[in-house]
Amino acid sequence: MGADRAASGSNGEAGKQLRSMEGGERLLPKGFPRLKNDTFLRAARGEETEHTPVWCMRQAGRYLPEFRETRASQDFFATCRSPKLCCELTLQPLRRFPLDAAIIFSDILVVPQALGMEVVMVPGKGPTFTEPLKEVEDLLKLRQKWTLMSYMIEGGGSTTMAKAKSWLYRHPEASHRLLRLLADVIIDYLVGQVAAGAQALQLFESHAGHLGPELFQDFALPYIRDIAQAVKSKLKEEALPLVPMIIFAKDAHYALRDLAHAGYEVVGLDWTIRPQEARAQIGKDVTLQGNLDPCALYAPKEKIGELVKKMLESFGTQRYIANLGHGLYPDMNPEHVGAFVEAVHAHSRHINKHS
Amino acid sequence: MGADRAASGSNGEAGKQLRSMEGGERLLPKGFPRLKNDTFLRAARGEETEHTPVWCMRQAGRYLPEFRETRASQDFFATCRSPKLCCELTLQPLRRFPLDAAIIFSDILVVPQALGMEVVMVPGKGPTFTEPLKEVEDLLKLRQKWTLMSYMIEGGGSTTMAKAKSWLYRHPEASHRLLRLLADVIIDYLVGQVAAGAQALQLFESHAGHLGPELFQDFALPYIRDIAQAVKSKLKEEALPLVPMIIFAKDAHYALRDLAHAGYEVVGLDWTIRPQEARAQIGKDVTLQGNLDPCALYAPKEKIGELVKKMLESFGTQRYIANLGHGLYPDMNPEHVGAFVEAVHAHSRHINKHS
Repeated sequence: MGADRAASGSNGEAGKQLRSMEGGERLLPKGFPRLKNDTFLRAARGEETEHTPVWCMRQAGRYLPEFRETRASQDFFATCRSPKLCCELTLQPLRRFPLDAAIIFSDILVVPQALGMEVVMVPGKGPTFTEPLKEVEDLLKLRQKWTLMSYMIEGGGSTTMAKAKSWLYRHPEASHRLLRLLADVIIDYLVGQVAAGAQALQLFESHAGHLGPELFQDFALPYIRDIAQAVKSKLKEEALPLVPMIIFAKDAHYALRDLAHAGYEVVGLDWTIRPQEARAQIGKDVTLQGNLDPCALYAPKEKIGELVKKMLESFGTQRYIANLGHGLYPDMNPEHVGAFVEAVHAHSRHINKHS
Repeated sequence: MGADRAASGSNGEAGKQLRSMEGGERLLPKGFPRLKNDTFLRAARGEETEHTPVWCMRQAGRYLPEFRETRASQDFFATCRSPKLCCELTLQPLRRFPLDAAIIFSDILVVPQALGMEVVMVPGKGPTFTEPLKEVEDLLKLRQKWTLMSYMIEGGGSTTMAKAKSWLYRHPEASHRLLRLLADVIIDYLVGQVAAGAQALQLFESHAGHLGPELFQDFALPYIRDIAQAVKSKLKEEALPLVPMIIFAKDAHYALRDLAHAGYEVVGLDWTIRPQEARAQIGKDVTLQGNLDPCALYAPKEKIGELVKKMLESFGTQRYIANLGHGLYPDMNPEHVGAFVEAVHAHSRHINKHS
């Protein structure tokens, strides 16, 4: 959909130190504390690391009791607008686990809100647009910027994305106008994240499995490429750090070769991709990230250790960032998340020592 | 999940003539009317055809006003148990479109019902188990046969299948016991369908995308293989016709080579698979089926024609059965379904004539 790409902004990554941002102003990270652990950044740039760095998508999430407690005190979108709460939620998983990256807490839907669309969080249903885009003319109602095409058209989550895909087939030109609008605001948002201290950026395309090769080629890849290029030029123009960028297009098994050349330092993989296959298609010049089946964390801890070992043996310990193939689920046991993180560190150190 | 494989039974295909079945008795198809159109069967067996045969998954479905009308008169599962209504629903799409196959109307969930589990159809939510399997001990409550592991554990539809997958990781042996039980009943059910007149069988694995390569290898592929082999031996034993079998494992892009050798005459493909890639991996000895993006039917009719032409050029017109890459959606325009069917016939005849 070109949709969840907006998620990128919400997942700008930083090292262990985060500076809280105040209000909506762009703050250059003056006096930003020195990074204590640059393993993740080195792996993203293709430099050698002593252990394989690891983080988890949705690591600041409902599986943590302290997260549920902090979240319970505030409306969801009010939380997204509070630097203090975002900082607290961002740091919670790092107090428990020796993760190699912190993920700045935010949500993709703050962007369409900023564009004038009403989004409410419906308990048991998730984010819901009160007035999704129905007709091409509805585009005119929008302010100049926003995000997430599929959500904006579907009005909320969907299993088939039929309404959003229907736009691509019925209104290809309007779809491109919408995606261009989204790409532009995503670019500004990502640059803003770096200006505020983010040290890496991840762009999501969660709906590649709905698209298929032709629609992806026409409606996703051009914007994915353009976002990388435009973010990098703007970072240069504004004399901001050229942070590494990750592209994670879920279920885009058919587009790995294209993603390898889309301008990103790291390609994230879902758990349906075989590591060797990914390396063969993507080549040696890009760092791979992923891809343990999130549900593997339901397994007993010893089994998690075995699966991590196998994963590290398949990917190799270098030019590789360990992660799950998708986000953590709310019912997961935090101890099993800890077991995953520790297994990555222990097994990768062991492999590095004996190779 | 090994789950929707049970769907196979519900999708046993027949030619244009169907004999209504009475009660639960197994009836040998005595006096079965002569088949008027064997194009589909010839393509499935790899024989030459004048045009490429075409059918649509979920062709008897809510997008047809006459379907909604027939269905409105009866409870869903009562409909599944009425040979007269099943026959009517099966034939409705063939009255409108020159389809090359009719799909016997049924539902996978009649099987767990027969095993003693309560399943109700909840409006707006779909089929829901009142007491899904939670603990391994719940297996003992079941009668000897049934189906659909993921539904049975999830209790209904799910976007992540986390509960069912959690079983695979936490209780691999109990999962195999459950899948063995399911495979056995599916085998009997499929043989029963042939005894009652089905002239082809399709087995679904709708959740391959949730599984990934390892879980698919361990928990799906062995049963998929076994079902083909066991159905064929039983058909021989009972002197029933050796009907062609189709395997459709949605999102199993990582398993195409294995599926090519799983004992099926036809491999169905979802729309994320490139035709040439599929042919390269599957080889020349298996018929391919698929794979237009169902959402393409939202496009204007001329665009549908163009997409069909491209699809036929990519797959070739022989050893190929045209279909969508997944089922039709309820909001689709029947005229566009007609345009799809006609485009397959017209373009394939044109290509055959000029090659």
